[in-house]
Amino acid sequence: MAQSPITPRGEDFAAWYQDVVIQGDMAEPAEIVKGCMVIKPNGYAVWELLQREFDDRFKATGHQNIYLPLLIPQSFLQKEAEHVEGFSPELAVVTIAGGKPLEEPYVIRPTSETIVGHFFAKWIQSWRDLPLLLNQWANVMRWELRTRLFLRTTEFLWQEGHTAHATHDDALDEVLRILDIYADVAENVMAMPVIKGRKTQSEKFAGAVSSFAIEAMMQSGLALQAGTSHDLGQNFGRAFNVQFQTSEGTLDYVWQTSWGVSTRLIGGLVMSHSDDKGLVLPPKLAPIKAVLVPIYRKDEEKAQVLETAHRIAKEVGAKVDDREGQTPGAKFFHWERRGVPVVLELGPRDVASGKIVLKRRDTGSKEPVPQSEINCMLNDTLDRMQTDLYKKAKDQLKSRTVLANSIEEVEGILNEVTAEKGNGKFVMAHVKDDPACDARMKEFKATIRCIPTQDEYDGPGKCIVTGENVDRRVVIAKAY
Amino acid sequence: MAQSPITPRGEDFAAWYQDVVIQGDMAEPAEIVKGCMVIKPNGYAVWELLQREFDDRFKATGHQNIYLPLLIPQSFLQKEAEHVEGFSPELAVVTIAGGKPLEEPYVIRPTSETIVGHFFAKWIQSWRDLPLLLNQWANVMRWELRTRLFLRTTEFLWQEGHTAHATHDDALDEVLRILDIYADVAENVMAMPVIKGRKTQSEKFAGAVSSFAIEAMMQSGLALQAGTSHDLGQNFGRAFNVQFQTSEGTLDYVWQTSWGVSTRLIGGLVMSHSDDKGLVLPPKLAPIKAVLVPIYRKDEEKAQVLETAHRIAKEVGAKVDDREGQTPGAKFFHWERRGVPVVLELGPRDVASGKIVLKRRDTGSKEPVPQSEINCMLNDTLDRMQTDLYKKAKDQLKSRTVLANSIEEVEGILNEVTAEKGNGKFVMAHVKDDPACDARMKEFKATIRCIPTQDEYDGPGKCIVTGENVDRRVVIAKAY
Repeated sequence: MAQSPITPRGEDFAAWYQDVVIQGDMAEPAEIVKGCMVIKPNGYAVWELLQREFDDRFKATGHQNIYLPLLIPQSFLQKEAEHVEGFSPELAVVTIAGGKPLEEPYVIRPTSETIVGHFFAKWIQSWRDLPLLLNQWANVMRWELRTRLFLRTTEFLWQEGHTAHATHDDALDEVLRILDIYADVAENVMAMPVIKGRKTQSEKFAGAVSSFAIEAMMQSGLALQAGTSHDLGQNFGRAFNVQFQTSEGTLDYVWQTSWGVSTRLIGGLVMSHSDDKGLVLPPKLAPIKAVLVPIYRKDEEKAQVLETAHRIAKEVGAKVDDREGQTPGAKFFHWERRGVPVVLELGPRDVASGKIVLKRRDTGSKEPVPQSEINCMLNDTLDRMQTDLYKKAKDQLKSRTVLANSIEEVEGILNEVTAEKGNGKFVMAHVKDDPACDARMKEFKATIRCIPTQDEYDGPGKCIVTGENVDRRVVIAKAY
Repeated sequence: MAQSPITPRGEDFAAWYQDVVIQGDMAEPAEIVKGCMVIKPNGYAVWELLQREFDDRFKATGHQNIYLPLLIPQSFLQKEAEHVEGFSPELAVVTIAGGKPLEEPYVIRPTSETIVGHFFAKWIQSWRDLPLLLNQWANVMRWELRTRLFLRTTEFLWQEGHTAHATHDDALDEVLRILDIYADVAENVMAMPVIKGRKTQSEKFAGAVSSFAIEAMMQSGLALQAGTSHDLGQNFGRAFNVQFQTSEGTLDYVWQTSWGVSTRLIGGLVMSHSDDKGLVLPPKLAPIKAVLVPIYRKDEEKAQVLETAHRIAKEVGAKVDDREGQTPGAKFFHWERRGVPVVLELGPRDVASGKIVLKRRDTGSKEPVPQSEINCMLNDTLDRMQTDLYKKAKDQLKSRTVLANSIEEVEGILNEVTAEKGNGKFVMAHVKDDPACDARMKEFKATIRCIPTQDEYDGPGKCIVTGENVDRRVVIAKAY
């Protein structure tokens, strides 16, 4: 296995990111399949932990998992006008199957609203069938031109929730309930602070009435949309004729929502916490929380060290790295790059003194600890690391969020930002939700990331583009 | 939701199966996507429980999960001659992506040996990289002409293990280790007895040296191949040039295995235990183990019954069905069809007498139990039901397995068997592993299911087709 160096963040942030992902055994480009990646063992194990966190929360709020077909008849996408316009350029199309050309081609799902619409029409007849709260864990495909491991790949893994409700209020409650779940996992599990907000009309999901998102700031200062929750109104209900009998006996179209998070989150996780030595994982998402590296030179030391090592490792649930033919230094390096939160070192002197050395991945601090206290100390360290990583990320978000009160000011700040330099900022300014304003930001290669759901700053003001009154400042940034 | 009747098994076994799956909220045909299904909440919840059982066992034996691309360059399949011949007729082909025709089409993976071969060549250099033990949970697609819910669908969900080893012995150990895991889950979790065996050369996986399988008998007496584990030899190693440096410093091709179980298992589960009233699930795979149905007529009864109901349900971890506007009878019917192992009934008299009625799904037995003992009694009942379902299935397997000592005898038995009548049998006879013998069985629309890995019957004998000596009897049956 290659032990290539990792490009420092300060030199080239994008190169650093790719190095960390590859050296951390998280993923690698598939190359032979355009824009696809292989998710490798460490990356997939993180994804499994993330899935568990989300899935538990979805189930606790009454959602059930299902599985829908990968393929969608091409004509389905055309039933919702904005939807087809948004997704057509990105489709992968199956035209031959079982050795014969297909009469109607299928597309590989870029998302499943249309096929959900078809089945909702079969499954929903009355208000008694509502709310219908479904979710699926699946792969989807969007033929992107510029791809990057985890952040944007032609195929990715995600969950997509699809729900139907009797009223618009119920649907909107669901949209915001899910947004809260997304923010909860981002902040309390991924240690990644986020801003919850509504997308502008220009930036909303193709086919939605409105879209909400959680936006995170990476160490580069660039924004990452980390999860979206859409109010679909009755758009898909009408397109697929999903009518139900209301409790008053009238007929109405259902109100739908859809929402998703994807393997892109892993990219966000990497860019939130990792450093120039490689991957850093918050303990709650570390597949291996602690590794114990036994150190010995002579054969008579080996037996004693290994015995103590295995005893302690068993007690604290750590993995012992007792591979032969690898130096302790190579082992430290190995686990450091893979983001293991704590490495324990145990040598003959530690055995004699009843101590063990605890090394923390994020700070690099090394501390000898009495073996009798290691279980407690390890758990404390993991808890503290989880909290500290969040705090550090939150501090950076605060310190790199700036106010701007004119379009020139926004331009001045954002024109200096490049993805390579990693000198991004979140600019908070009063801007109207109007496509003309979104277009203005694009001139600086930036976007309105969201209109925060809560006043983060100082209330109403005048739009810096149109001069009209708006309720609050929006987040403007360059983004992945 | 439709409450259609379930066709009795004795009338039409295939129709019964489809009714049980649909009425049990397990799956329904997707129709709009040829041969695909929607896996519905109850079916997906069973799949999640099954996944957990397998995945825990894979991880405990050192396997790691990864995720490989859905699409495979069409040319990859051609690198292994038998493999391409086996899978070509079943491929779905992507010819257009991102609005343009592709230079080289991609196929949707029917299985991933070829793409694994490509990556193994990148990841494996030395004997130190071996064994490499990987698995993925994924969807695959095989364009089948005749499909049936769960048993054979164009798209299905599965796990596919892919491993590489330094020696043929190591690979063969792995193949059999996995076969044991498959049999363990089938018998001890699914309560579905299986016969472990090797496939004949005619029936092996396209590209394997030899294939092993677990074969189960459904209530129809037909066989279901429930999991396969393949010794790939060096076939894919050669095709994809996966060479490694041995510990002696020479170069060799890796020895590979692959193995899989799929959502087909759910079909096997349904056909093993369900009855004319609908789905029966072994407790270990029941998403809901017990439902408590409160019974009351007057308002003054309601409060008291519901209070006791919720107290008991909380204690035993049961779900209370307190839906308004549904009769208790309709509720019993609802949960019966969904295969909930135990339904608890609680009425005003039970509240007064301190009892609760425990009804078991498989036997239909109803028993009043003191409320103080319900936790213990419920767990006992679930344990007993798990054991009894296995025993019942095992008894049927034994009673419908017959010996035959001539080809005429085999023909006589199997010619009477039809899938509709559900009068199948496993015929044990001495048959040589020779394509001519397989072909002979096909004349009765039967196949050699496997050559058992252990002597199940009476040792060596003469092949009933060729007259040559063979080691043991094989299993011959009609199959799904």
